[in-house]
Amino acid sequence: MEYRSASCAGNSSNVGTLRVAYTPRIVPQATNIIMEIKVFLFSLIVIYISARLLGELAVRCGQSSVLGELLAGVLVGPSLLGLVYPTETLTLMGEIGVMLLLFEVGLESDLQSFLRVGPSAAVVALIGVVVPFGLGYGVAAMVGLTPLQAIFVGATLTATSVAISARVLSDFGRLQSREGTIILGAAVLDDILGLVILSVMVGLAESGTVSWLTIAQTAGLAILFLSAAVAFGNRYATLFSKLVNRLNTRGALVITALTFALLLGYLAEEARVAPLVGAFAAGLILARTEHQGLIEERLKPITDVFVPIFFVLVGVAVDLSHLNPFHAANQPVLLLAAGLTVVAIIGKLVAGWGVLDREVNRWVVGVGMVPRGEVGLIFAGVGLASHIITDAQYGAILVVVALTTLLSPILLKRLLRNRPIE
Amino acid sequence: MEYRSASCAGNSSNVGTLRVAYTPRIVPQATNIIMEIKVFLFSLIVIYISARLLGELAVRCGQSSVLGELLAGVLVGPSLLGLVYPTETLTLMGEIGVMLLLFEVGLESDLQSFLRVGPSAAVVALIGVVVPFGLGYGVAAMVGLTPLQAIFVGATLTATSVAISARVLSDFGRLQSREGTIILGAAVLDDILGLVILSVMVGLAESGTVSWLTIAQTAGLAILFLSAAVAFGNRYATLFSKLVNRLNTRGALVITALTFALLLGYLAEEARVAPLVGAFAAGLILARTEHQGLIEERLKPITDVFVPIFFVLVGVAVDLSHLNPFHAANQPVLLLAAGLTVVAIIGKLVAGWGVLDREVNRWVVGVGMVPRGEVGLIFAGVGLASHIITDAQYGAILVVVALTTLLSPILLKRLLRNRPIE
Repeated sequence: MEYRSASCAGNSSNVGTLRVAYTPRIVPQATNIIMEIKVFLFSLIVIYISARLLGELAVRCGQSSVLGELLAGVLVGPSLLGLVYPTETLTLMGEIGVMLLLFEVGLESDLQSFLRVGPSAAVVALIGVVVPFGLGYGVAAMVGLTPLQAIFVGATLTATSVAISARVLSDFGRLQSREGTIILGAAVLDDILGLVILSVMVGLAESGTVSWLTIAQTAGLAILFLSAAVAFGNRYATLFSKLVNRLNTRGALVITALTFALLLGYLAEEARVAPLVGAFAAGLILARTEHQGLIEERLKPITDVFVPIFFVLVGVAVDLSHLNPFHAANQPVLLLAAGLTVVAIIGKLVAGWGVLDREVNRWVVGVGMVPRGEVGLIFAGVGLASHIITDAQYGAILVVVALTTLLSPILLKRLLRNRPIE
Repeated sequence: MEYRSASCAGNSSNVGTLRVAYTPRIVPQATNIIMEIKVFLFSLIVIYISARLLGELAVRCGQSSVLGELLAGVLVGPSLLGLVYPTETLTLMGEIGVMLLLFEVGLESDLQSFLRVGPSAAVVALIGVVVPFGLGYGVAAMVGLTPLQAIFVGATLTATSVAISARVLSDFGRLQSREGTIILGAAVLDDILGLVILSVMVGLAESGTVSWLTIAQTAGLAILFLSAAVAFGNRYATLFSKLVNRLNTRGALVITALTFALLLGYLAEEARVAPLVGAFAAGLILARTEHQGLIEERLKPITDVFVPIFFVLVGVAVDLSHLNPFHAANQPVLLLAAGLTVVAIIGKLVAGWGVLDREVNRWVVGVGMVPRGEVGLIFAGVGLASHIITDAQYGAILVVVALTTLLSPILLKRLLRNRPIE
């Protein structure tokens, strides 16, 4: 046996600029693995304790526990205590967490009610992309950015973070409400629109031109993936039940369900859709099987292990150094950030008014769409790597993402308290 | 927010020879993380599917499912299909798996019964270290190794792999049998004796001398850790129950229990004991709380997620190229390996006869102690890195570890069928 593993050696073909030499010896790795296990265990302990403590505190203040977990990340991250760093392993485990979260949301959802709110969700998603993009472009152009820079900045304001919205709705028991269904449906559509925008951005960054073929391919693959998942859903579901009933070994049900979610997540990634969309589709499909209740029950502890890693890492990535207003260099950044945050929120609130159903609370839908996340960061990253946007502009976008992510749970909580839905 | 994370950058201070450049840019990592997520999801899917299929097959052949998982690893590893490589993330998640396995074993155990079999376990552990060491030294010296080489080879035969034994016993429902308790107790003691031997080995490798102070420190810390864990156990247990009863957020019980296991694992690592010993102690402690049943039930799905990763990775690490007898270069290696495997098995079977209780099936105890594992590999690795043993000798040890690991479940199954215990 040979533990050639440790320290990315196994991944060396994928690490790009971080390519490391392949060393076939065991001991350096054996020693590293022991060091890494220490760091890894320490990180996990800090993540679970801080997430639990601040999550409890948030709940006692009447807030969503996810707000506590995000703040726990800010607290233990490099900005303040410096106890947890976003290592590869933690990032990947967090990614599994967000997939499991969406898998669980899918399991608790009813495909029919998604199809019912489809038109509303589509309008909300479309407005929620067009208006923030336009307003963001306007703000950026006003403070003197070039048109290409303004396009990138505008694009970062379009994408909704499904994970945050889903978790807040779930914390307040509103996942199955009509508002919740519209928010989730629109956020998933946003993810697909985001892919199309990303392919435009990459084209602009690389060659200054837009390849319509790439755009059509991206959109086509994403739509094909989701339609196929939904259309063949019933067949998968029956197969799944038959398979599980034949297995004898321990944990057959939950691990088979989990593997199915990972598989659809992987296929989604192959179709260039985010893995969490695949996991969500897997949940929708298995929601129709006889095992739905049991899967949900057994999945909960697993979700509880992985999900806090994701949210704490989101907090860990917040760099408070951009936020100090007394540092002169931060002032133009903060000005741009403030302008963008305002239009980012307004843009999504406007989107809420796209709901076609009069009985739905449009403020709730709008606020639910406010949190930005990973996708916006990836847009901004493409712009930064291509030297289209500057470090300072990138910093401003980071602030927008942090503020919308932290504000949305608080706003949503107030709305839900003041205007009870259903 | 800044994903400075990806690809070990966060760990760079710990990676020794694999130190990588720190790059603060986001996009290379964002791209890598997407690539890594693909590879990671693919690996997990392959691990779960192959472990499930071969595990089921093993059970239908009347074998332990862990045998199937080990063979699944050999099949999907670099030796055959090359689908899964032991990346850092998988290795660390597997390590969590083995900790959870021992935590679960601890939860299902009764400290009193361990203390009752204490003397037997101590004798078994001691004989199981001394006899394999002596026989291994003899075989190595006979085929012409130097005394220092022979010492290293002998040392690699001393350590029992707690994980394999515990899993096989659990698969056959024999964890609570007196034989099971003795095997586990002796295996945990073996782990501590292994630490003492390792500190001797490192001294020999580095300076050719033995530091009695280091040995005393190592042994002292390990004994102190275990005694403290057991002695303060009741107090921890009460505190734990009080704490959990006060928490409101979701998953409080299982995540608090898990964090406790990770914490004791981390402290064990600090005391230079293997983390799995700490997790085992955590299980023993929480076994006395009112929540024991509920923790066990909710922990099962989590264990089922992590444990297969560990056993499949053990299989993945098996390098079949050493095993081809038609390759001339392999013949002396295989000869040494065959000799060492025979004495490795005999040595532990002799240890089984150290059981003081006449009603215990000593063959079962002996066979249960046969599997070697991580600890033996680390010893061999120290010898290899210090250029004391050669690549070929290292290869022979890898073969011994692979054979004892794969043979023990099969032998134990036959014994349990022929001679029912209790």
